[in-house]
Amino acid sequence: MARQPTLAVVGATGAVGSVMRELLGSRRNVWGDIRLVASARSAGRTLPCRGEELPVHELTADVFDGVDVAMFDVPSDVAAEWAPVAASRGTVVVDNSDAFRMDPDVPLVVTEVNPQAIRHRPRGIVANANCTTIAMIMAVAPLHREYGLRELVLASYQSVSGAGQYGVDTLHDQLTKVAGDRSLGSRPGNVRQSVGDDLGPFPAPVALNVVPWSGDLCDLGWSSEEMKMRDETRKILALPDVKVSATCVRVPVVTGHSVAVHAVFAAELDADGARAVLKNAPGVILVDDPANGEFPMPIDAVGTDPSWVGRIRRSLDDPRALDFFVTGDNMRKGAALNTAQIAELIAAEFAAR
Amino acid sequence: MARQPTLAVVGATGAVGSVMRELLGSRRNVWGDIRLVASARSAGRTLPCRGEELPVHELTADVFDGVDVAMFDVPSDVAAEWAPVAASRGTVVVDNSDAFRMDPDVPLVVTEVNPQAIRHRPRGIVANANCTTIAMIMAVAPLHREYGLRELVLASYQSVSGAGQYGVDTLHDQLTKVAGDRSLGSRPGNVRQSVGDDLGPFPAPVALNVVPWSGDLCDLGWSSEEMKMRDETRKILALPDVKVSATCVRVPVVTGHSVAVHAVFAAELDADGARAVLKNAPGVILVDDPANGEFPMPIDAVGTDPSWVGRIRRSLDDPRALDFFVTGDNMRKGAALNTAQIAELIAAEFAAR
Repeated sequence: MARQPTLAVVGATGAVGSVMRELLGSRRNVWGDIRLVASARSAGRTLPCRGEELPVHELTADVFDGVDVAMFDVPSDVAAEWAPVAASRGTVVVDNSDAFRMDPDVPLVVTEVNPQAIRHRPRGIVANANCTTIAMIMAVAPLHREYGLRELVLASYQSVSGAGQYGVDTLHDQLTKVAGDRSLGSRPGNVRQSVGDDLGPFPAPVALNVVPWSGDLCDLGWSSEEMKMRDETRKILALPDVKVSATCVRVPVVTGHSVAVHAVFAAELDADGARAVLKNAPGVILVDDPANGEFPMPIDAVGTDPSWVGRIRRSLDDPRALDFFVTGDNMRKGAALNTAQIAELIAAEFAAR
Repeated sequence: MARQPTLAVVGATGAVGSVMRELLGSRRNVWGDIRLVASARSAGRTLPCRGEELPVHELTADVFDGVDVAMFDVPSDVAAEWAPVAASRGTVVVDNSDAFRMDPDVPLVVTEVNPQAIRHRPRGIVANANCTTIAMIMAVAPLHREYGLRELVLASYQSVSGAGQYGVDTLHDQLTKVAGDRSLGSRPGNVRQSVGDDLGPFPAPVALNVVPWSGDLCDLGWSSEEMKMRDETRKILALPDVKVSATCVRVPVVTGHSVAVHAVFAAELDADGARAVLKNAPGVILVDDPANGEFPMPIDAVGTDPSWVGRIRRSLDDPRALDFFVTGDNMRKGAALNTAQIAELIAAEFAAR
């Protein structure tokens, strides 16, 4: 019988790492030993994983000895430093940060879209895509295969957990401050006064507000989140010239990133045809019955695996354009789940040996 | 000296009517007598307006005797019934509902965009535009004059006050229920459980959620709000063939509608040129310095008159396309203010007699 590979979870104590440990207990078990890894601060603790309490090891070079696959759920700078260390010891790294995504020698993979890309990984690293990109591309990719994607215009509604546990805590703190004062939001400035200076990881209050900014400032006024949606879509779909304009906006939602999508294709299409394509697409659930109040929303998509897709309409003015709305759990398919799925594809290579 | 015309405010007790009474006290005084009008339920009360307590009259045909201009801030069915009654008595009606907007004999006016349209009003009725459309078109119209609009792709972030005081109360009620429980929004279904059955005017909980639906179901899966953004834009700009795709989404914001705009023009443009156009546009304020955290947001735009415009970027893939974000107070310019401004244009006709 083939050996079950050893897995390391690097960043096991963080927000995504916690979802990852939960997922490992609920998915088909392809792993032998599991090694939890975190910063020195957390080393020595134990954490639940796959039904047992496992010790947390400090992130060092030696921690990768005997590890076949490592999932990294750590900040970009930590990943940039440590993923090559792990890879140099023969560990295949699946990295959830943006450190390696645009490296031409690192495949960028969404498992339902371009699983074949994991085979060519000269650096021993495979990158997981941006959470907002994943939610959207799960629906766009099957439509592209059918109709040939030419252009995307995207507007996001991104939850605070995309900014980690600090983002979630910040929204809950702000909600506690603003709840109960019925004058808030109807007069200039009173939400800012009520929330005070504790903005957490955000540039403005997020309770009772929408913040049209996510990430860092890039050239020409674009945010890094908007650039990721363009660059990663092009790489994942292997469409280096596809037109993408994204506006990324933070909303007061805990978990679940949504995107309003306007997609233009080479071929004419209709809404029923698009629905048929999406109904059969892996990792997609069709929720498209507005007469009965059914459309994708974060409060329903949270905690689930698929991208929820609905509000499917052909543009009234262009028979090649489709408008729809998609919501996905940014902590699961947008982060931990897709990382786990990539790692499982690599585990299957071990099983096939 | 020219006579100052008599004004009626129909729907003086409602959410928009309340903002209207406030505005009448702060704007240049062009009115003689002001008559407050509401349903029989509110008749006999007094309400503050222009520094005095005015009696509320019941909505009847006789209430329009001697009234030169009437501003209607009432539901569509009430406007549909009563605006023609007022007009038949010689009162010029400025209606904030959607009852007459697409009537070819009723001008649809945003005062900075197409003020000349008020002159041709064979039915004696002038319509105010939809609140989401107004916020957006304030920025799009000056760009159209410079570059020639060809296409709009829009995604809205609409506040609950667009659904009236009932919408505002519903959000505040839901916030009180969800605040303080830090597990909410991270697990499937628990926001729905916490909010319970009291959804107010919305098809789903709006706290900790985004709801991709506003208005009624129209043909082919479009919502009435999305159709308004297309139809009203075409009528106001006198561009019957311009391409418009909108996705309208409710967000947990009290007041302030935002729109992510992707606009394609006939001419090539750049972001600096667009900024120069918008800087000189009436009723627009440019807030576009993301490095310093400056972009349009509802918590800042609430209570102010202009449309706040920022995040201005030329599309990276199309030199004729511009992406930007706009926020406007849906109760002021989106409703009461534009109605007041239209009424003031009509008052000026009296002054010129």
